[in-house]
Amino acid sequence: MDEEMGCFLGRIEQLIRYAVWNSGCDGIVIGISGGVDSALAAAMCCRAIPPDRVLGITMPTKVTPEEEVSDAIHLCQVLGMRHCVIPIEHIIDAHRKLPGFLETPYLIGNLAARTRMAILYYYANRDGRLVCGTSNKTEYMLGYCTKWGDNAADIQPILHLQKDEVYSLAREVGIPGQILSKEPSAGLWTGQTDEGELGMQYERIDSVLRLLESGTKEPASDDERKVIERLKKNEHKRRPALSLLSEKNR
Amino acid sequence: MDEEMGCFLGRIEQLIRYAVWNSGCDGIVIGISGGVDSALAAAMCCRAIPPDRVLGITMPTKVTPEEEVSDAIHLCQVLGMRHCVIPIEHIIDAHRKLPGFLETPYLIGNLAARTRMAILYYYANRDGRLVCGTSNKTEYMLGYCTKWGDNAADIQPILHLQKDEVYSLAREVGIPGQILSKEPSAGLWTGQTDEGELGMQYERIDSVLRLLESGTKEPASDDERKVIERLKKNEHKRRPALSLLSEKNR
Repeated sequence: MDEEMGCFLGRIEQLIRYAVWNSGCDGIVIGISGGVDSALAAAMCCRAIPPDRVLGITMPTKVTPEEEVSDAIHLCQVLGMRHCVIPIEHIIDAHRKLPGFLETPYLIGNLAARTRMAILYYYANRDGRLVCGTSNKTEYMLGYCTKWGDNAADIQPILHLQKDEVYSLAREVGIPGQILSKEPSAGLWTGQTDEGELGMQYERIDSVLRLLESGTKEPASDDERKVIERLKKNEHKRRPALSLLSEKNR
Repeated sequence: MDEEMGCFLGRIEQLIRYAVWNSGCDGIVIGISGGVDSALAAAMCCRAIPPDRVLGITMPTKVTPEEEVSDAIHLCQVLGMRHCVIPIEHIIDAHRKLPGFLETPYLIGNLAARTRMAILYYYANRDGRLVCGTSNKTEYMLGYCTKWGDNAADIQPILHLQKDEVYSLAREVGIPGQILSKEPSAGLWTGQTDEGELGMQYERIDSVLRLLESGTKEPASDDERKVIERLKKNEHKRRPALSLLSEKNR
């Protein structure tokens, strides 16, 4: 590992360790989907604090592919952390009795993300732990997440990393090849892929985001316009709720 | 109504109207507990946009007193808004099957608050609406709320009002007397009162908060110390998750 990479990893470990110390909490609870983001976030937690104080929870629904669950189990074994699989279909089912319940992938996907958040916090509250989020910068900027669902956590150790950086670090810390090689998917429905849903390759999105951050004033391509449109549309997911409370009180 | 009060109410109405216009949403979904905060927030929504585009949802559990539900129903009739009662005990029940489920008022109270949030957003997502929060400044500053539960919303029209100001405005806009006269309660268990749980009267908390905001350097009384301690302990509920993402990206 080169020095720069070591420093990069070290800062993330410090953030996590600081958060655990400062909160007086006993450990961390983290959702493990079988994808690369939660794998990297979990690996960083296990580098920052003893792995037996990191609890991973995988919460499949009926549309979650079996391989995601087995990849999650394998990952947690490799990392030496505690892990459990908690199917949540019966909780989604309980919501199916709501008046006027309508079933679409969008509605169920959001409901599942919020249900997972509530379960992670249930165990965090029970055991006096922090919830570790697994959002990366690309999806955070694009708002490709469920508000108060997968974006809700106490610490977000990989929030400053674009998707390509997530892969670099994941390779560096030894995330299993099966997780590195699969296509990214939010797992909202069978066969769903992030890039299909976003309508653009992650590679392209990441380079557009860098271009925009470099201070480009006017979007020059259709891709830039598409990314800017998403940034604006989903800004509310990155902001506190609209209110008349002045910033000094936050 | 004096001019100042009219202006005060007008600014809140504008915030709500602006949020609805700007989001392109069709209306508002709001949780109605039977208490004064949600009553005032709902009344302000109904002043800002046509009441038939405001949907109130009351979500009792088995520990919710009957009067809270009937007060909520009565309020929504008075305001002319749409309203439904959705008991959530069967959804809490589904969680009772979680491995290692432990039942305490604290754990169930938090779970119920997050479940209510997920249901409000379910309907908001279904109908293209915004979720209106009902947090006031006193509970926001003290962190007397469930993180990503009752504090999670798209707009927070009464977040700048301390509890005593909530009562003044609630009287001004004609909230029914039954709601104004009952003791504030988060409804976490039978007989629970906010002031009992906070260990201090709201009147006292509000005056300490004003004193602290006026720039007092050193806490002079036990009450001030108690309030400051809570402010610090729950700061994480008012902040975004800890991360290495710089402020400029938020």
